[in-house]
Amino acid sequence: MENNREIYLDNSATTKTTKAVNDSMIEVLEKAYANPSSLHNLGMKAEKAFESAKQTLADCLSCTKDEIYITSGGTESNNLAIFGYLEAAKRKGKHIICTGVEHPAVYEAVEYAKTQGYEADILGADKNGYISLDEFESLLREDTVLVCVMHVNNEVGAIMPIEKLKPIMKKKATNAALFVDAVQSFGKIAIKPSKIGVDMMSASAHKIHGPKGVGLLYIKKGVRVLPILHGGHQQSNLRSGTQNVFGTVGFATAASEAYKNIDKNYEHVSELKNRLYNRIVENIDNVVLNGDESALPYILNVSFIGIKSEILLHALESRGIYVSTGSACASNAPSPSRTLLCMGKDKKEIEGAVRFSFSAMNTKEEIDYTIKVLTEEVKNIRKYVRG
Amino acid sequence: MENNREIYLDNSATTKTTKAVNDSMIEVLEKAYANPSSLHNLGMKAEKAFESAKQTLADCLSCTKDEIYITSGGTESNNLAIFGYLEAAKRKGKHIICTGVEHPAVYEAVEYAKTQGYEADILGADKNGYISLDEFESLLREDTVLVCVMHVNNEVGAIMPIEKLKPIMKKKATNAALFVDAVQSFGKIAIKPSKIGVDMMSASAHKIHGPKGVGLLYIKKGVRVLPILHGGHQQSNLRSGTQNVFGTVGFATAASEAYKNIDKNYEHVSELKNRLYNRIVENIDNVVLNGDESALPYILNVSFIGIKSEILLHALESRGIYVSTGSACASNAPSPSRTLLCMGKDKKEIEGAVRFSFSAMNTKEEIDYTIKVLTEEVKNIRKYVRG
Repeated sequence: MENNREIYLDNSATTKTTKAVNDSMIEVLEKAYANPSSLHNLGMKAEKAFESAKQTLADCLSCTKDEIYITSGGTESNNLAIFGYLEAAKRKGKHIICTGVEHPAVYEAVEYAKTQGYEADILGADKNGYISLDEFESLLREDTVLVCVMHVNNEVGAIMPIEKLKPIMKKKATNAALFVDAVQSFGKIAIKPSKIGVDMMSASAHKIHGPKGVGLLYIKKGVRVLPILHGGHQQSNLRSGTQNVFGTVGFATAASEAYKNIDKNYEHVSELKNRLYNRIVENIDNVVLNGDESALPYILNVSFIGIKSEILLHALESRGIYVSTGSACASNAPSPSRTLLCMGKDKKEIEGAVRFSFSAMNTKEEIDYTIKVLTEEVKNIRKYVRG
Repeated sequence: MENNREIYLDNSATTKTTKAVNDSMIEVLEKAYANPSSLHNLGMKAEKAFESAKQTLADCLSCTKDEIYITSGGTESNNLAIFGYLEAAKRKGKHIICTGVEHPAVYEAVEYAKTQGYEADILGADKNGYISLDEFESLLREDTVLVCVMHVNNEVGAIMPIEKLKPIMKKKATNAALFVDAVQSFGKIAIKPSKIGVDMMSASAHKIHGPKGVGLLYIKKGVRVLPILHGGHQQSNLRSGTQNVFGTVGFATAASEAYKNIDKNYEHVSELKNRLYNRIVENIDNVVLNGDESALPYILNVSFIGIKSEILLHALESRGIYVSTGSACASNAPSPSRTLLCMGKDKKEIEGAVRFSFSAMNTKEEIDYTIKVLTEEVKNIRKYVRG
């Protein structure tokens, strides 16, 4: 019985698509399969499906359809925002600010920009994963051209004070654009980028029960970005390549489901997270919460001191529970979590860190089973390691 | 009755996915939905599905799995090949050779490279769309670093003598890599890149009844290419971003179906093409074949002199027949076909050019109906325009 369980608590790594998402994609594959660039009405049907999906995504962000560009995912969106903006703003400055807890698709892109003549300052995080607005202000320069601050950290769920950044930037760095990686927050927290001074914002379908291989980049009207892929001039010449119509429709279906239930889902996962965390504290000693109570309820990051998280991960999976030792976004990365290091966590905390990430599909029963198994396995491992 | 017809003769723009492709994707979405980078066995299951799909694609090309990189499509593959190789081979030279009949995703990428300090020579095409090996040899230089020659032209079907290029390059440009855009030939003509001196080769899923949003780049072992997208170091650090597992499996299913029937399909579309072309010549005067009899049978490009192709396209679509006025790869491009211009076609030939592109799904009955309608509509339009 226990062996047949599949309790998936790794939803920040990726999610399972819903039936509605799959159905919407199959419908497009069957009925709107043509190339949106084709001049005939089958092409127009595909173009309409694509544009209508973009409209749905734009509605979620309270922006216009023309401010949405479809990409192959969060990584491409982040690279397009960074390199496409830097190329367009070449003469505006050479200084970038980026947090130390960004996703690799932002952090590594900024690292690459440094090899191309840019200077980057890394904004630290406090012990709970938050940036400091004072430090942010102190790093801003007249020649700062780009600021990269994620909305929600992918490992500990820290929600950054995005809305407070632009007013500060306006004082010291009038040329700088604000880019927000919202991959972990889109569909979970309602955000209206244009209302809070965000110039560019990325999101990904597969983090919210949409398909892999699709993402979006919001670019505020008037903000100039140059393409990083060259070709057939699709999507207002910013993103060449035949549009992934069925994937975009799947993304829109997922976004629409997420937004329809955004408050209900938030409450549901809050209950799950609190239930899991409270029982962990009750049942298991020597645990440390990474992050604080203000973090996104979709993510719970806890260190089990004295345990190597990978051992616990495998113990849990053997009993049908799937968690993460950090983010899954870096391919089989053996190096310690940059986020936890940046938060000043010590070696034992980093080694023992497990990320539980929830979705609306998870249930209280799954959490209760998880607590039971977790308590047993932590005890076993500690006994074994100490013995 | 006639109104319900859907005779899709625009298969070089994109194709409809098969049921087997859709089924294989849904299976992955339901059973292997995890992130391939996740350490637990659900992640491993996804990774296995991805790697096994890559193996299938590698088998088609008689190469190893490690020589296959999955991208978001032909455009990204072409850009990765060009910019990723140029970046890695920075010190080897600054001269590129590219044909004048390349797809925009190659041609425009080379145009962009020219703004970055590269020099490019454009290799012409003869009246049937073929490059000249003599001209090719004359353009090669000691500092030639990259040669871009497509396998099959997307508008007229000209099959380029790919296998003859490397021996010539070895004489004059020992540093140069050969990149082949095989988007229109993959799954239609068996090609073994490593056996014919090809260093990099691109292909796309949606041209062979696979899903949109997925492509591959073959990179010969030992050929160094640097990433154009930075992030989580997936795919041997060459292509960051969560792998599109279900799309890649759909691609592999499509490729596997295409290769299994490659000769049968070739024969089938040859019959369709010959049938259509012969009847056009019998029934309609003042037509010009663009390309020659050696062209790929999947493509028939004919100019109806005195007719604007777009008018014919809409006349045909009103009766359920879907064709193209050129390639659909350039978004609603109003400019005249670069390929036909390069072939020395005159204004009337270019204006009246229609591309019929076939797939194994098309039938003789569809062709016969097309001939009947085409004959009537060309007569009508000519009467109207002349009258």
